[in-house]
Amino acid sequence: MSTFGSQFRVTTYGESHCRSVGCIVDGVPPGMALSEADIQIQLSRRRPGQSALTTPRNEKDSVQIQSGTEFGYTLGTPIGLMVQNQDQRPHDYSEMDLYPRPSHADFTYLMKYGVKASSGGGRSSARETIGRVAAGAIAEKYLGLAYKVEIVAFVSSVGPIHIPGSLDPTSPEYIAFLSDLTRERVDTFLPVRCPHTKYNDKMAQLIAGYRDKSDSIGGTVTCVIKNVPIGLGEPCFDKLEAKLAHAMLSIPATKGFEIGSGFKGTEMPGSIHNDPFTSTPKANGKLGTATNNSGGIQGGISNGENIYFKVAFKSPATIGIDQSTSQYDGTSGVLAAKGRHDPCVVPRAVPIVEAMAALVIMDAVLIQQQRETSRSLLPPMPQPIGLKTPAVVDGSEKKVDPANVPLAERNKLVSDPKGGQAVGGQGEVFGDE
Amino acid sequence: MSTFGSQFRVTTYGESHCRSVGCIVDGVPPGMALSEADIQIQLSRRRPGQSALTTPRNEKDSVQIQSGTEFGYTLGTPIGLMVQNQDQRPHDYSEMDLYPRPSHADFTYLMKYGVKASSGGGRSSARETIGRVAAGAIAEKYLGLAYKVEIVAFVSSVGPIHIPGSLDPTSPEYIAFLSDLTRERVDTFLPVRCPHTKYNDKMAQLIAGYRDKSDSIGGTVTCVIKNVPIGLGEPCFDKLEAKLAHAMLSIPATKGFEIGSGFKGTEMPGSIHNDPFTSTPKANGKLGTATNNSGGIQGGISNGENIYFKVAFKSPATIGIDQSTSQYDGTSGVLAAKGRHDPCVVPRAVPIVEAMAALVIMDAVLIQQQRETSRSLLPPMPQPIGLKTPAVVDGSEKKVDPANVPLAERNKLVSDPKGGQAVGGQGEVFGDE
Amino acid sequence: MSTFGSQFRVTTYGESHCRSVGCIVDGVPPGMALSEADIQIQLSRRRPGQSALTTPRNEKDSVQIQSGTEFGYTLGTPIGLMVQNQDQRPHDYSEMDLYPRPSHADFTYLMKYGVKASSGGGRSSARETIGRVAAGAIAEKYLGLAYKVEIVAFVSSVGPIHIPGSLDPTSPEYIAFLSDLTRERVDTFLPVRCPHTKYNDKMAQLIAGYRDKSDSIGGTVTCVIKNVPIGLGEPCFDKLEAKLAHAMLSIPATKGFEIGSGFKGTEMPGSIHNDPFTSTPKANGKLGTATNNSGGIQGGISNGENIYFKVAFKSPATIGIDQSTSQYDGTSGVLAAKGRHDPCVVPRAVPIVEAMAALVIMDAVLIQQQRETSRSLLPPMPQPIGLKTPAVVDGSEKKVDPANVPLAERNKLVSDPKGGQAVGGQGEVFGDE
Amino acid sequence: MSTFGSQFRVTTYGESHCRSVGCIVDGVPPGMALSEADIQIQLSRRRPGQSALTTPRNEKDSVQIQSGTEFGYTLGTPIGLMVQNQDQRPHDYSEMDLYPRPSHADFTYLMKYGVKASSGGGRSSARETIGRVAAGAIAEKYLGLAYKVEIVAFVSSVGPIHIPGSLDPTSPEYIAFLSDLTRERVDTFLPVRCPHTKYNDKMAQLIAGYRDKSDSIGGTVTCVIKNVPIGLGEPCFDKLEAKLAHAMLSIPATKGFEIGSGFKGTEMPGSIHNDPFTSTPKANGKLGTATNNSGGIQGGISNGENIYFKVAFKSPATIGIDQSTSQYDGTSGVLAAKGRHDPCVVPRAVPIVEAMAALVIMDAVLIQQQRETSRSLLPPMPQPIGLKTPAVVDGSEKKVDPANVPLAERNKLVSDPKGGQAVGGQGEVFGDE
Repeated sequence: MSTFGSQFRVTTYGESHCRSVGCIVDGVPPGMALSEADIQIQLSRRRPGQSALTTPRNEKDSVQIQSGTEFGYTLGTPIGLMVQNQDQRPHDYSEMDLYPRPSHADFTYLMKYGVKASSGGGRSSARETIGRVAAGAIAEKYLGLAYKVEIVAFVSSVGPIHIPGSLDPTSPEYIAFLSDLTRERVDTFLPVRCPHTKYNDKMAQLIAGYRDKSDSIGGTVTCVIKNVPIGLGEPCFDKLEAKLAHAMLSIPATKGFEIGSGFKGTEMPGSIHNDPFTSTPKANGKLGTATNNSGGIQGGISNGENIYFKVAFKSPATIGIDQSTSQYDGTSGVLAAKGRHDPCVVPRAVPIVEAMAALVIMDAVLIQQQRETSRSLLPPMPQPIGLKTPAVVDGSEKKVDPANVPLAERNKLVSDPKGGQAVGGQGEVFGDE
Repeated sequence: MSTFGSQFRVTTYGESHCRSVGCIVDGVPPGMALSEADIQIQLSRRRPGQSALTTPRNEKDSVQIQSGTEFGYTLGTPIGLMVQNQDQRPHDYSEMDLYPRPSHADFTYLMKYGVKASSGGGRSSARETIGRVAAGAIAEKYLGLAYKVEIVAFVSSVGPIHIPGSLDPTSPEYIAFLSDLTRERVDTFLPVRCPHTKYNDKMAQLIAGYRDKSDSIGGTVTCVIKNVPIGLGEPCFDKLEAKLAHAMLSIPATKGFEIGSGFKGTEMPGSIHNDPFTSTPKANGKLGTATNNSGGIQGGISNGENIYFKVAFKSPATIGIDQSTSQYDGTSGVLAAKGRHDPCVVPRAVPIVEAMAALVIMDAVLIQQQRETSRSLLPPMPQPIGLKTPAVVDGSEKKVDPANVPLAERNKLVSDPKGGQAVGGQGEVFGDE
Repeated sequence: MSTFGSQFRVTTYGESHCRSVGCIVDGVPPGMALSEADIQIQLSRRRPGQSALTTPRNEKDSVQIQSGTEFGYTLGTPIGLMVQNQDQRPHDYSEMDLYPRPSHADFTYLMKYGVKASSGGGRSSARETIGRVAAGAIAEKYLGLAYKVEIVAFVSSVGPIHIPGSLDPTSPEYIAFLSDLTRERVDTFLPVRCPHTKYNDKMAQLIAGYRDKSDSIGGTVTCVIKNVPIGLGEPCFDKLEAKLAHAMLSIPATKGFEIGSGFKGTEMPGSIHNDPFTSTPKANGKLGTATNNSGGIQGGISNGENIYFKVAFKSPATIGIDQSTSQYDGTSGVLAAKGRHDPCVVPRAVPIVEAMAALVIMDAVLIQQQRETSRSLLPPMPQPIGLKTPAVVDGSEKKVDPANVPLAERNKLVSDPKGGQAVGGQGEVFGDE
Repeated sequence: MSTFGSQFRVTTYGESHCRSVGCIVDGVPPGMALSEADIQIQLSRRRPGQSALTTPRNEKDSVQIQSGTEFGYTLGTPIGLMVQNQDQRPHDYSEMDLYPRPSHADFTYLMKYGVKASSGGGRSSARETIGRVAAGAIAEKYLGLAYKVEIVAFVSSVGPIHIPGSLDPTSPEYIAFLSDLTRERVDTFLPVRCPHTKYNDKMAQLIAGYRDKSDSIGGTVTCVIKNVPIGLGEPCFDKLEAKLAHAMLSIPATKGFEIGSGFKGTEMPGSIHNDPFTSTPKANGKLGTATNNSGGIQGGISNGENIYFKVAFKSPATIGIDQSTSQYDGTSGVLAAKGRHDPCVVPRAVPIVEAMAALVIMDAVLIQQQRETSRSLLPPMPQPIGLKTPAVVDGSEKKVDPANVPLAERNKLVSDPKGGQAVGGQGEVFGDE
C-alpha cells in the first residue's frame, strides 16, 4: 500500500497531474524543533530542473506543513505535508492513449487497476517520491539531534564509469573514503554528485552524450550511514538490511541492492570475509571490528560500524528515440515520446536514497528504544552463585559445564565496563558516539 | 518482528536448542488439499546432512501439522506447524561464552537484547528458516493449483565460479535457459544444485577444498518464477521487487539482490534496456515483451513475463581456522570454533529462496484477487459519447484533445478482446497461461 | 496511531487550529464514480452550526479531493482529502494555560506527549472526525453500489429520554422499526435526528434546557446496517463486532457499545436468546433466522441479518458553569470555560457513527472478497464415495459414523441450491439481496 | 486474523479437536524471569471442569514453553506456547452435520470458508481462548514487575442478579469496592467468582437451576486495572478504551462493553459527570481526579486513575433443550444437542477478560515507553523569554495574550515539581505509584 514504517510511519498520496502530492507522517517524537525549511532543503535537492542534465520541468515543490507542529515544535501528532502540483493539466502525451510505453508502468497499471490514468502509471511517477523525501527529512532531523546520525549518499557510477574503488567495496581505502564523506562535500560535485572531480566530469559528459542522443543511461547510488546506534533491526524477517533493501527497491527504476561486501563478498572465503573484533575498544568502550565487510550489520542487527550499501538504477524508460513496439490492442507501430525527461536519474536519486535510509533507521531506532526501556524497568537478573569472575571462567573454560552456568553469569560479561552496553532513554544515548 | 506477510502471513518461533521450531500460517485459502508430505519435501531439501558438503548435524526435521486442516483439506483457519529439535541441549560451544564469534550475531544479539542465549545469536540460526520453508511450501501448493506458478531456484555461483551466462542476465540465451529450468532438473545436479554438469562439479570441488581447509566460501542463488499472474505488487512502497528484496535479504547470510538486468542494467542505455511490447499476443491474448530486462516487473507490478532475480550469500562465518579477535571484555585472543558447519550455504539455500519467493507472490496474489473482485462488482464505466472507436482514435490521434477524452473511452481499449484484461475470481484465472 | 483499517485504510491528520484537516484513503476500488459531492453530503451532516442546538462555530468544511480520481472515477490510487480550517488562530482559551479542563484531554495529552498544544488535547478535538466521515462516505459509496448496503444511524436517547422500544432491543417491534428506517427519514427529524416525532421534540427540549443552563447532556446513537453480505469478520481477534466496538469507542466522548441483545441479553436464557434458523429460505435461498438477538453476527461473522448496535456518548466536557478543580501545578481554583460548544453531541454524532461503521464493513468486505476468490480458484473437493444424498443421511443419521464422512460429503450440503452459498466476484454478489 | 497487538503481539492457532492449541508471543521484553508456572496459573483458572457448574470435559491444559526462554529468563525472541488437546477425535455431534446450531458459528463459518470443520465453527470454540490467556499471563508478569499493575476481574451479574452497586458504576461506594478488590479475594468466592458472599450464592443457585433445566444463562464480568501508567493509548483510532472494547468483544459470546460511567453516564449532565482535578496531589506529585466517571481514560489516554469496565456475555448457545430450527438445506426439524457444556460462561471468562486487558495495556505500555524515550533524547525546548513563573502567570492571567506565550512557557508548567511528569525508562517508572 502507500504506507511505510511501523512506529515512524509515512503515508503518501498523489500522482503527476492532480492537485497536490503529499504525505502524513505519524509517530514523530514530540517536542522537536521542526520548520518547513528543514524539509525544503531535501526537496530542493530532489526537484527537477536543477541543471541542464535534469528535466526542465521546473516545479517549485514548496512544502507546506498542514498540522502537527505549533510555534516551531512538533506536538507528537501526525504531520500533514503538502506540495502543490504546478502542472495540474491531465496530460500532454497523446500517443500514450494508444501505446503502453516500453518499460514504463502504463501497461501494468492498466492491468492492475483496470483503469488508465491520463499520466499512464500515475503513482509510478517520480513526483510520488516527494512525500518520501519530506518524511525522510523529518526522520533525519531526529536522528541527528538524538544520535548524531549522518546519512550521506552519492553517485558511485553512471553507465560503465565507476568512481574509483567502488568495484571492491571491501578495500580499506574505499571504506576510509566513505567514512570521510559529508553531504556538503557531495554537493560541491554538481551536477552529478559524484565526489571525485575527474569522475564527476566524466559522468557529466557521459550523461550529456546520452541526452544529446535523446537516449538515457543508468547508474548507482552508494549510501553510508554514520553513528548508527547498536542494536537496530528485528529478527527474523525485519533484519535491518532487509528493511533497507525493501526501502531501496521501492524507489522507482531500481534494479539491485548490495550491502557491505555485497556480490563481491560471495567470492571471499570466510577466513578473509569475517570481521574480527578489535581489542582496542572504541571511544564508548564498546567493541568495534577491524574490517567492515558486514557493512555495519550482523545477524540483521546494527553493530555500530558504518552501514554502507549500493543501489542500482536502470536507465530512464522515457526516451526521445523512436521505439518499435505494440499498441494496447496488439497493433505494431512506432512510438516517439515527446515529453522531456531526465537522461539519468542518479543525481536526483541521491536525496531519495538518503530519505528512504532515514525512514528505515528511524523506525528501527524507535522500536529499539522501546525494547531497551522495557528491559531497563525489570529487576536485574540474579547474581551468579558459586561461580568465579569471567576472567577465571576464562582460565578454566574447559572445566565449566556451560549448561550449569546461570544465565546471569554469562550475561555478567555484558555489564563489564569494558564490554559496554547499548543503552537508551533518559539522557543516555544508545548510539555510538 | 517474527511475522511476514499481510494477507498470507507466517509467524515463526524457535532457536537452535529449544524444544521445537515452528510457525503459524494464517490466511491459507480454505478447501485446499494439504498434507504433511506437501511440506516435508521442501524441508528435506533444506535440512542439513544431505551430502558430504553440508553440516553432518543430521536432524530429521519432520513436520507435524497441529491445526487448520481436517480430512486432508485446509479449513481456512491458522495452520500450526512444528518440528521437534533433536538436539535440545543448551549448547556445546564453551569459548563462545567469552568470545563473540566474528561476523556472527553473538555480539549484536547481546547488545540488542541485553541477554545472551547459550547458542549466541539464537534466532540467527539457520534452524529459524524451517518455519519459512514450511510456510512457503503451503503458498507454493496454492500458487501451483490456482495459477500453475512454478518457482525454481538454483546455485548460480560458488566463489568466483559462475554458471555460464549468469554474469549477463540480459542475454537471450540465459533468459531461455532460465525459462526451461525445472526443480526436478535442478535436483539432478547434487550436491551443489548448479544445473550445469561441468560447473556443478567444479563448484563441488571448490567447496570441498574450502571444507578441507576448515574454511568457507560464498555464492549466489538465482530464482525464476514462471506463470506469474499480471498485476501483482502494490504501489508505492510495496512494489513486488521491493517485497522480494525484503524477503531475500531477511535470509541469513545474504548480502545482495538484483532483479532482471540488475547491476548490469545500470550500464545499458534506455534504447537497449527498454523491453518493447510484441505485436504477437501471447496465448491468452495479452501483450508480452520482446526482451525481459525488467525481470517481469514494471513500475513495481508484475507484467506476466518470468520474474528472475539473484541473491548473494556470503561465506559462512563459522570456520575451523583460528581467528585473532577480541573477547566481550575487550581482551584480545584467538578463537577456534569447534562446531561443524556448512562450508557453503548456497546448496541448502535453494529451497529457502524458493520459499521466500512463494510467500511474497502468494501475499501479492491474495491482495490483487481482492482488488479485481472489488472492481468487478462495480457498475461498468459509462460508454463514451461522441467519440470514435479506438481504431479511429488511432488514425486521428493528433486531432484528439486527450483532456476531452472521457476516462471510459481510454479505458475502452482495455476491454478490447485483443488487448486482454487481467481478471480473477470465480473460475477465471487472472494469470498468464 | 492515526490509521484505521487493513485493506481499506484511512490515515488522518489535523488539529483544531492548524491549516487544514484531512486524510488519505488507501485501497479504494478502482473505476468507481466519485465526486466531492459524494463526500460533502456527510460532512455537512456532521459540521457544527446546523441548528440552535449545536455549536455556532460555523465552519464550511468544504472537502477538496487532492488525488486518486480522474474524470470523476477512482484510479485505485490513494485519495487525498483536505478541508481547510477556517479558524487557524492558535486558540482563544486563556485559562486553559493554567487549568487542565476537567474530563477533557488537556491533562492526558500533556502527560503523554510532554508538550501542550494551544488547543489543549489537539487531536481530541471533534474536528479530527472530519477525516473519518470523509473516508466513510467513500466506503459507503462502494458498499451501496456493490451490495446495496444501507447504514442508518439515529439518536436513540438523550439523557434519560429513550426512544420507545430501545430499552429492549430484542423486541420484535423494535427490530421491525429498525428494518424500516432510512437515512432520509431520520433527517426529517431535525434537529435531534430521533425518528419519533414526540420524542424528537422532547429530546430537543431537554437539550435546550441544558444549553440554557450552560450545562451539557449525553445520549446514545443506534445504528442499523442492512443488506450485509454474509461472511464478514475474521476469527478470532478481528470478529466483526470487535472491529465495530473498536471503531465506535474510538469516536470522542463514547463510553459504551452493545450489539444485538447487548446487556439486556445477559439476562435471557439460552432457550430464548438463541436465534432459530427458519425453514423459509430468504429470497436468495439462504438460511435466515427467526429472531435476531445476535444482531446479525454469529461467531464474529455476519450471518446476513441486519446488524444493529448502540453507542453511548457522555455529556460534553466543556460547559459554561464554574468548576472547582485544580491547576496543572496543583493549585486549587475555579475554571469557567468561555468557548461555545455543543450541549449534546449525539445529533452530530449520527454521521460519524455511520462513517465508522462503513469503514469496518468495507474493510471486512474486501478481506472476504479475497478469501472467496482465492477459494474459487481451487479444484473442487472430491466427490463423496458410497454415501447417500443429504436427505438420506438425514433419515439414517444415527448409523453414519461422522469420522468416516468425507469432508466433501459434509460440504456437499453447502452446494445444495436450497442451502445457498455466499459468493462474490465476477458479477455475482456475495451479499444478501 | 489470528494476531493481536502491535509491539507485544500474540498469534494463536488451534481448534477444538486438532493436535494442539497454542500461540506465539512476540515482543516480550528480554531478561524477565518466566516459567511455565507463571502461565499455568491463569490457564487453570480458565479450564473447564473446575466445578459442578462448569463443563465436565476435564482437560488438563498443561502449557509447554517451546522457545524464547533459557534458564528461566526470556531471551527477547518469540515465545512458542503449546497445550495438547486431550480429545483429538474429530467430533461427536452427529446431528451437527445436518443442522447449523442456533446462535452458534456453524452456519457463518460454513458461509465464510465454504468448508465445514467437524467441530462446526472450529475456531469459535472456547479452546481458542487458551492462547489468549497464556499470552496475557506473560504480559501481566511484566506489567506487575515493571509498574505494579494489577488486573482484577470478577462476575458482576448472572442473569438478572447484579452484585450490589454495579448498576450505578459511578457511585463512590462502588468505586471504593473496586479499588479494594484483589484476585486472591475474588477466588475465595467460588464457584461463581462474584466477590459478595450472598450474591455469589444466589448466582450459583441461579446457574444450577438453568443447568438442571438443560438451559443456560448469561452475565457480566467487570474488570478493574490498578496502578496504570499515565499516557497509555494512541490518538485517534487506537484510544485505550477502543482497544479494550476491541479486545473484549473478540472474546466469544460477548455482546457489550462499557467503561467508567458507561451507558449510565449518558444520562448525567456534564456538570456532574466531569471529573474535577484534585488540589491534593497524589503520592507521586501528579494530579488526580476527585471522581472517576471517566473510568481512568480521558481523550483515549490513561490518566492514572483506576480503569474499570464491564463486559456483557450472553447465555451459551449450546443447550440440552430441543430446538425447532432448520437444517442446512432448509428442511425444518428439531435439534437436540447432546454435548455437555457450561450453563454459564462468566466464571470461566474472568481470567480471559484479565488476559485480554493485559494484552491491551502491555502493548500500549511498550508504545508509550518508546515515545517517552524518544522525547527524552531531544534537546530541551528553549526557555521562555520575558515571562514570569507560572504562579505569576496565574495571578495576571487576564493580561497575558496566549498567542504570544511561547510553547516552552506553556510547557514549563509540565516540568514544575508539583505538576509532575509522566516518565519512563532507566529505572524511573512512568506509572502511578
